[in-house]
Amino acid sequence: MKKSLGAKAIAYPTPVFIVCSYDKEGKPNAMNVAWGGICCSSPPCVAISLRKATYSYNCIVERQAYTINIPSEKYAKQADYFGVVTGKDVDKFSAAGLTPIKGEFVDAPYINEFPVILECKLLHTFEIGLHTQFIGEIMDVKAEESALNNDGVPDIEKIRPMIYAPETRAYYGIGSCLGKAFSIGKNI
Amino acid sequence: MKKSLGAKAIAYPTPVFIVCSYDKEGKPNAMNVAWGGICCSSPPCVAISLRKATYSYNCIVERQAYTINIPSEKYAKQADYFGVVTGKDVDKFSAAGLTPIKGEFVDAPYINEFPVILECKLLHTFEIGLHTQFIGEIMDVKAEESALNNDGVPDIEKIRPMIYAPETRAYYGIGSCLGKAFSIGKNI
Repeated sequence: MKKSLGAKAIAYPTPVFIVCSYDKEGKPNAMNVAWGGICCSSPPCVAISLRKATYSYNCIVERQAYTINIPSEKYAKQADYFGVVTGKDVDKFSAAGLTPIKGEFVDAPYINEFPVILECKLLHTFEIGLHTQFIGEIMDVKAEESALNNDGVPDIEKIRPMIYAPETRAYYGIGSCLGKAFSIGKNI
Repeated sequence: MKKSLGAKAIAYPTPVFIVCSYDKEGKPNAMNVAWGGICCSSPPCVAISLRKATYSYNCIVERQAYTINIPSEKYAKQADYFGVVTGKDVDKFSAAGLTPIKGEFVDAPYINEFPVILECKLLHTFEIGLHTQFIGEIMDVKAEESALNNDGVPDIEKIRPMIYAPETRAYYGIGSCLGKAFSIGKNI
């Protein structure tokens, strides 16, 4: 039996994207974004949604760039920290003990310790409501060699990304493999 | 040591959204979408990206509506099936043995057997490249009572949603809880 919960922003899974940018003074900043996802294969693009009130909002608009950093589950505390304080007053990287590296393709820093990072150039800005959606063209993906499988491809089991659950507001790791896509449904 | 993988559409996690719509004749259709995510809290909105070549594309444009259906991991085969055949030639619901129910708020069907569904009204259409992004306003969320916790809130541990891993093209379940959001990072 289904129960109606009303008009709410709920979906499963939502990601834990740590979005990094430089502020006017060149200080690296990081925030925790769960409203986002890939939105185009060609050009490869990823969407993130931010409130205008965030410190990162203006940083991204001014530099026209951001990076998306995928934390592995061992960085759960740091990932959460990036969502509970504002970069206006604090150098979040120093506080979290993480290392900002200047992007190779865009004017934004990435987190050296995280296994997968996406360098994004701001392509479109859409005002939706409380949140503004930034569409970023993915100029490069960088992955730790330890997060790649024998074919040189990123392996989610080595990356061990985090998942955010809305409503109960908790983080989860990934579980076991359920099967190959474009394959397990073929015999229906 | 980080390795550059080039400009690619990669992120972790990506969702497994089964997007349902009616075609011109009123036949319910379903497709598997991994490019999407929540994009605004108020109004609550969710983005999905589709190629124009999909059968669902025109269905959504004509009816200005779709539902997002979150499969639990026990429906992994059915979810994959929705991604490997086109609704042009087949009644996917019948083949998958799932039940389409007419949406209460929008002109699109939802999957009765899935634990969480979102009824979406098409709000914006953005051409990005190979993919078109549909922004849908979430008019209602419906959840199985068995997927709610004691507070009446959707519980990801009961929903058991699927995760899609790009590149290795496989599905995963959710793993263990890593901690409470807006909480575990506070003591940094």
